[in-house]
Amino acid sequence: MIIPVKWSDEGVEMLDQRLLPTEEKWLTLKTYAEVADGITDMVVRGAPAIGVSAAYGIALGAKNFVGTNMTDFEDELEYICQTLGKTRPTAVNLFWAIARMKRTFQKAKEEGKSISEIKQVLIEDAKAIHEEDIESQRLIAKFGGELLDDNSTVLTHCNAGALATGGVWGTALGVVRGAVADGKKISVIADETRPYLQGARLTAWELLQDDIPVTLITDNMSGHVMKKGRVQAVVVGSDRIAANGDVANKIGTYMVAVLARQHGIPFYVAAPLSTVDLNCPTGEEIPIEERNIREITHIQQIQLAPEGIDVSNYAFDVTPNEFVTAIITEKGVARAPYTESLRKQFED
Amino acid sequence: MIIPVKWSDEGVEMLDQRLLPTEEKWLTLKTYAEVADGITDMVVRGAPAIGVSAAYGIALGAKNFVGTNMTDFEDELEYICQTLGKTRPTAVNLFWAIARMKRTFQKAKEEGKSISEIKQVLIEDAKAIHEEDIESQRLIAKFGGELLDDNSTVLTHCNAGALATGGVWGTALGVVRGAVADGKKISVIADETRPYLQGARLTAWELLQDDIPVTLITDNMSGHVMKKGRVQAVVVGSDRIAANGDVANKIGTYMVAVLARQHGIPFYVAAPLSTVDLNCPTGEEIPIEERNIREITHIQQIQLAPEGIDVSNYAFDVTPNEFVTAIITEKGVARAPYTESLRKQFED
Repeated sequence: MIIPVKWSDEGVEMLDQRLLPTEEKWLTLKTYAEVADGITDMVVRGAPAIGVSAAYGIALGAKNFVGTNMTDFEDELEYICQTLGKTRPTAVNLFWAIARMKRTFQKAKEEGKSISEIKQVLIEDAKAIHEEDIESQRLIAKFGGELLDDNSTVLTHCNAGALATGGVWGTALGVVRGAVADGKKISVIADETRPYLQGARLTAWELLQDDIPVTLITDNMSGHVMKKGRVQAVVVGSDRIAANGDVANKIGTYMVAVLARQHGIPFYVAAPLSTVDLNCPTGEEIPIEERNIREITHIQQIQLAPEGIDVSNYAFDVTPNEFVTAIITEKGVARAPYTESLRKQFED
Repeated sequence: MIIPVKWSDEGVEMLDQRLLPTEEKWLTLKTYAEVADGITDMVVRGAPAIGVSAAYGIALGAKNFVGTNMTDFEDELEYICQTLGKTRPTAVNLFWAIARMKRTFQKAKEEGKSISEIKQVLIEDAKAIHEEDIESQRLIAKFGGELLDDNSTVLTHCNAGALATGGVWGTALGVVRGAVADGKKISVIADETRPYLQGARLTAWELLQDDIPVTLITDNMSGHVMKKGRVQAVVVGSDRIAANGDVANKIGTYMVAVLARQHGIPFYVAAPLSTVDLNCPTGEEIPIEERNIREITHIQQIQLAPEGIDVSNYAFDVTPNEFVTAIITEKGVARAPYTESLRKQFED
């Protein structure tokens, strides 16, 4: 059972995903600033996992506050939230978790709780966010697993597994695990997912742990394996879903979606409602992070491209809703038109 | 001016493309077996360059024959051709060059030439194949360059440049160079092209040499840059074109073609007629090479995926003719229906 981020008396424990699959090393992050760096540097990644980590980071920052003045405490919390909010722009779960922790603080303050009590309330709420995330995935696994046929192969992009979430199930891999838990025979084709290789390093590693058959391919191979009839469904996660069902996810997802439609293969997105941003009307408004070009020009110390080359390194892309067969959340399976079906899930 | 393979008194000289872009090292291959290994191990790659190299390999093998008996010489040549024919299955230029060198041998033998004279004839014909290849590219550059608009950006996949051919122009990059030679301002977006990174290592390196602006992206980014309106044309090379215009090329080409059509971007294939295989009715009959999975699981000594993972490593895919806007050869610009237009080019 994989749980990539945990609260402990020492701080926030994170499995260092940068070292997988060759090394399993846990880090203990002892300040909120270390948690922020851990998110920026991708010690932890994946929208739900980023949300859980940010909540723990706020709880940790609050716990470490040494003053006695409530205004100072509130100022410090605001600064902590700002710092964490600058780590990764695309995953909306980050902002969702920060907003929820802020509301929890306000409520506790309004209830007249002491600084010491509020610190405890924030820790409890971060743990609750984590538990709710795992429960959401269990439901995503249940609802999504029903959509997969027995003896079918699922293509997935990036890692939307336990490692990308609070743990245990995962979102896209939760759907796979849900189908397997239902007794279905499912195999997975994992895109390696350049430049950061989350598919090769993380998805492959996770599925090997669970004995779910997995075949690794390069990203540019997914069209070919679809054309050969090797894929019966595509399931991916998401970093932010707009109100109209446009889906931001790891760069390359859009290509997979277009190819899936070309081949008549269903394209499913699995994500908790905390990934759905009703304040974002369409995918056009979702900010797309651009990352350091060294992720593309080098692997560790090995230089892959000529010195001085121009590089674009978009970390995400947006798949328009017309390519999305269904969005699977903890509330069920939403289908087009998404503006209605997603809003309804929030209201249920 | 890049010429990646050359004949010399010492043997066949090859620029070791495995070491680019960080090292420019020439190897002197002194036997046909070394040339065969050079093709298999991708010291040289790219369909036209493989054809030229195979011709030189046969000439070198013939030159190194030490006997005096014509039947032994013919047997040796047959064995040389078989060895070279087993190096890479998809690039038809390999088989085209072998067949032409065999015909040249037969003709010389029938003319009553001596072993020593035939050796010279084979060297001359290999050099002619090389010169004709460069001349074909010059014409491809001319015809293709006319198709590109001024101030446009071309997306290309893999390396179909001077390095992939007998040299100087290249096929896909020949089209770019042809447009630049016409005074047009052209920039290039190069897919890095996993797993062997021909785009990052070779295309980027070639274009930097020529001061043609180039931006490197990962393969999974091409859909996103098309969606952003950054691409006005796609130009790729080919390893084999079937009689009906189906195009085998580096894995990932098919995805780019589907995405190009999705975005209304023309998709051009540039290749000499030696790449067109009229004996192959459709792309279904083109053999697709599968290579060592270590190309995907490792970069040099760095392990990218977990131990024991299943991997598919298709080196090529087939783009159906319906996605191909035009095929540019040394005879001009062929358009659908390709069965007629390609056959006509052979007859012209």
